[in-house]
Amino acid sequence: MPADEIALVADIGGTNTRVGLARGPKLLPETIRRFRNAEFADFEAVVAAYREAEGDPACAAACVAIAGPVRDGAGTLTNLNWTVDGASVARVERTAVLNDLQAQGHALGRIAPENLREVIGGVPGTEQSARLVIGVGTGFNTAPVYPTPGGGRVVPPAEAGHATLPARIEADLRLLTFVSQNHGYPDIEEALSGRGLENIYAWIASEAGKDARLPSAEIIAGAEAGEALSRRTLEVFVRLLARVAGDLALNAMPFGGVYVSGGMGRAMAPWFDQFGFADEFRAKGRFSGLMDQFPVFVIEDDYAALIGCAAFLDRS
Amino acid sequence: MPADEIALVADIGGTNTRVGLARGPKLLPETIRRFRNAEFADFEAVVAAYREAEGDPACAAACVAIAGPVRDGAGTLTNLNWTVDGASVARVERTAVLNDLQAQGHALGRIAPENLREVIGGVPGTEQSARLVIGVGTGFNTAPVYPTPGGGRVVPPAEAGHATLPARIEADLRLLTFVSQNHGYPDIEEALSGRGLENIYAWIASEAGKDARLPSAEIIAGAEAGEALSRRTLEVFVRLLARVAGDLALNAMPFGGVYVSGGMGRAMAPWFDQFGFADEFRAKGRFSGLMDQFPVFVIEDDYAALIGCAAFLDRS
Repeated sequence: MPADEIALVADIGGTNTRVGLARGPKLLPETIRRFRNAEFADFEAVVAAYREAEGDPACAAACVAIAGPVRDGAGTLTNLNWTVDGASVARVERTAVLNDLQAQGHALGRIAPENLREVIGGVPGTEQSARLVIGVGTGFNTAPVYPTPGGGRVVPPAEAGHATLPARIEADLRLLTFVSQNHGYPDIEEALSGRGLENIYAWIASEAGKDARLPSAEIIAGAEAGEALSRRTLEVFVRLLARVAGDLALNAMPFGGVYVSGGMGRAMAPWFDQFGFADEFRAKGRFSGLMDQFPVFVIEDDYAALIGCAAFLDRS
Repeated sequence: MPADEIALVADIGGTNTRVGLARGPKLLPETIRRFRNAEFADFEAVVAAYREAEGDPACAAACVAIAGPVRDGAGTLTNLNWTVDGASVARVERTAVLNDLQAQGHALGRIAPENLREVIGGVPGTEQSARLVIGVGTGFNTAPVYPTPGGGRVVPPAEAGHATLPARIEADLRLLTFVSQNHGYPDIEEALSGRGLENIYAWIASEAGKDARLPSAEIIAGAEAGEALSRRTLEVFVRLLARVAGDLALNAMPFGGVYVSGGMGRAMAPWFDQFGFADEFRAKGRFSGLMDQFPVFVIEDDYAALIGCAAFLDRS
């Protein structure tokens, strides 16, 4: 699209929706507003509220990232019962709907370096290297980013959080059995998400014969205060995240880097060193040497999905 | 490349190499020859033998598929100590090196329908649907196939066989521990490959207090003859393959289909119904409905990688 054209970009999460404007490839930070989903009947109402607040800007295009599966240009946010498609943003010439991880994949290369925290260093890849975003927040998901010969990129959708949580030792298997009680199936997201952290805490408590649950924020605060059960919870989380991240890297071969994003990804990052993230990431037997070729970063930019929406429109 | 140009295509496996010619997109079956790797010092010597046997045909291009990782246009076959790169085929203008699963990914759409066995039916995808090849033979690997907006495709490399074998129950975990004895790490390939079938057999025997190993061909023959330990081995193999295939499908979202290939994949296909492949493939809790949208096929074409090499050159 023309470099001076204005686009509307939005990022619909489980709790909040962020809406902003972009001029060509550039997100305009001063235009970003946040809305509580619970206060709106649907996404169209959020857009109307945003337009009113911003003086009804003329937009040539719109791109919406949603925390849920997208097929054939439409997606549904299960917990909200919102459906989002090309018609959700009226009065623009063209619209796109991406899942939030795809949007973050489109943002790679446009996130300011100060918003990338290096977890595992490594040889940087080339222009032709794949990259991989791993989002850990309300849910768990990934987006591989593959360059195409013409200088573009393919960022396919995934539902990686619903694959099997990989157990390696007896204790892992007990955790699997414990989290299976929720939905009868031990997927990755039952351990590696905000709810997952709470599940791990409840499981560790149950192993000690206690019936205890805590919100994820209190578990993290407890670990910071040196509380043993909370610290152990974070240790299990970090170790499982590293194992799953390593497995996903073997699928995507991201010589250009693994990028961990999402609220839980960021909250856990300060604990990676202490709880052995790098060692578990590399623990792939004869393939440890290959794992050393995948650098790992944490994305610390709140607006990565919005940046990605702007980048997607700019490139297409 | 021009439709009447001749290209040399080759598929280097662990034991044999197949070499043939293609005219434009079309593999010429009458030109295919098979060579035993053990009788040659390197791949260059195989090409020389092929050229001599075929009357030294003039080739404009060459594409080589190898059963091993490829990076920056070069690859190594670890068990042979052969290195293959752009210079491996002399006297052609351009060459490409792919891993064998990528080559099979490029073949999708050009394999004769009679060489595709439907395992799980489903709604066929669109031109924009992703597909996924899962190769189970000497090793285990995958190749997702993503369409690009211009009508092309991206078929990225993977080393998926070296991700963690996902245990769900106590018996799985005992198998993991058993196969970990080989290399200290329970990867998927230690169970889902020719060697993997032998490992599963030895593990089941060990559970009965017996020390027994059999070559994979004898295990399959034993199952066909109704021998209990061999039948149980195939049952465990089919169940694990279905679980891993389902997990990989949640990563690639192949609405255009999952395509199982390789010698072990084909050998196991007749047992899929009996040992519950479809049920285990779908066993993803709340996401079983999503799994129903991924049809599954078995590729029964010996020359899929050669077809893919010809297709790759034709498209590039």
